[in-house]
Amino acid sequence: MTSSNTAAELVHYTYFRSSAAFRTRIALNLKGLAHQDVFVHLRKNEQMADTYTALNPQGLVPTLVHKGRAIGQSLAIAEYLDEVFREPPFLPKDAAGRARVRQIAYAVACDIHPINNLRVRRYLQNEMGHSEAEVLIFMIHWMKEGFDALEKMLANDPQTGRFCHGDTPTLADICLIPQMANARGADMDISTWPTLKRIEKACYELPAFEAALPKNQPDAE
Amino acid sequence: MTSSNTAAELVHYTYFRSSAAFRTRIALNLKGLAHQDVFVHLRKNEQMADTYTALNPQGLVPTLVHKGRAIGQSLAIAEYLDEVFREPPFLPKDAAGRARVRQIAYAVACDIHPINNLRVRRYLQNEMGHSEAEVLIFMIHWMKEGFDALEKMLANDPQTGRFCHGDTPTLADICLIPQMANARGADMDISTWPTLKRIEKACYELPAFEAALPKNQPDAE
Repeated sequence: MTSSNTAAELVHYTYFRSSAAFRTRIALNLKGLAHQDVFVHLRKNEQMADTYTALNPQGLVPTLVHKGRAIGQSLAIAEYLDEVFREPPFLPKDAAGRARVRQIAYAVACDIHPINNLRVRRYLQNEMGHSEAEVLIFMIHWMKEGFDALEKMLANDPQTGRFCHGDTPTLADICLIPQMANARGADMDISTWPTLKRIEKACYELPAFEAALPKNQPDAE
Repeated sequence: MTSSNTAAELVHYTYFRSSAAFRTRIALNLKGLAHQDVFVHLRKNEQMADTYTALNPQGLVPTLVHKGRAIGQSLAIAEYLDEVFREPPFLPKDAAGRARVRQIAYAVACDIHPINNLRVRRYLQNEMGHSEAEVLIFMIHWMKEGFDALEKMLANDPQTGRFCHGDTPTLADICLIPQMANARGADMDISTWPTLKRIEKACYELPAFEAALPKNQPDAE
């Protein structure tokens, strides 16, 4: 389903390597929303430019500007898109199902990703004197712990379907897939988590996920 | 307003020191919900007991069990409580306002708290060889960066009222206040962020916040 909007109404500030922007790319694609992309090169610190921090005081990507109003934080953007552009929904209708989807999403977005992102890795290297190899071990530790828990949450629950919750993608898949891409980038063995691996495969069969991959972005290097 | 529920319907697994459980304590108090508390002593690793991980595979607090169904992740719990027990609402009615509140909440819950919590601090000390003093510098760095951004987001926005968004507490305040308590615990100078300090004062004038403080819990040491 294509929602009715114009590209001029929605401006998406993104960086191909950012997992948080990977989430919002999936969200925009799933909703079929026309939009304009603006590329913010994190490794060149473009996110710290005054013009960008005026939109996003945290200096993080992504930012979505809708009708002139800037929203930061990928999950706030995803929930906003879901409230304004209803179809297809990112959350089930029942409160218990919505809680389950959000729990899975936050298990990634609050307990894996923040500990592993660029600014934390940089800090561990530059301020705390760790080597790149030590930082990789740190990253892998938190991903393993998180994915082990997610596998348990998903494997034995009849609410898990083709995707994390039922047979259509939700906010949970929007968070899970970019994190799994990071795990693959760190050469982790995904087959340790058969349910996650199966869901990942189902997601990439949808163009919305495939097109959101870092390597498929215009700013990819 | 007191919602109609019985304490037997809602079981809250909490630990006095946990900022995530501090959030759900505020949420339960704001909704006026009768509930039963179960104390999970994180420093004694009670969160890793099989009986607990069966409820919460991540082995984190809090967990809320409502009518036999377990929900983990403090923000999933808060959104669930808001959907099931409507008054007073934790989110404004308009999508843009909801996005703003969630953005503030996630700026704390995704970008400050996860990098600073007990398991990360333990890992930095035990696995990466840092002293307690070095870990404190790490914590303070991320709190300062986060609070600086939040002060900018809140200070110059007419949507900021007595609380983070308007004149009633929202999900944003539920996340902000426990993080500010951590900053105070680390002896940070709160007056650096006058808007945050003013909002904190307004929050503690409400019994829901005051009663949720770590020191006011039955399991406080």
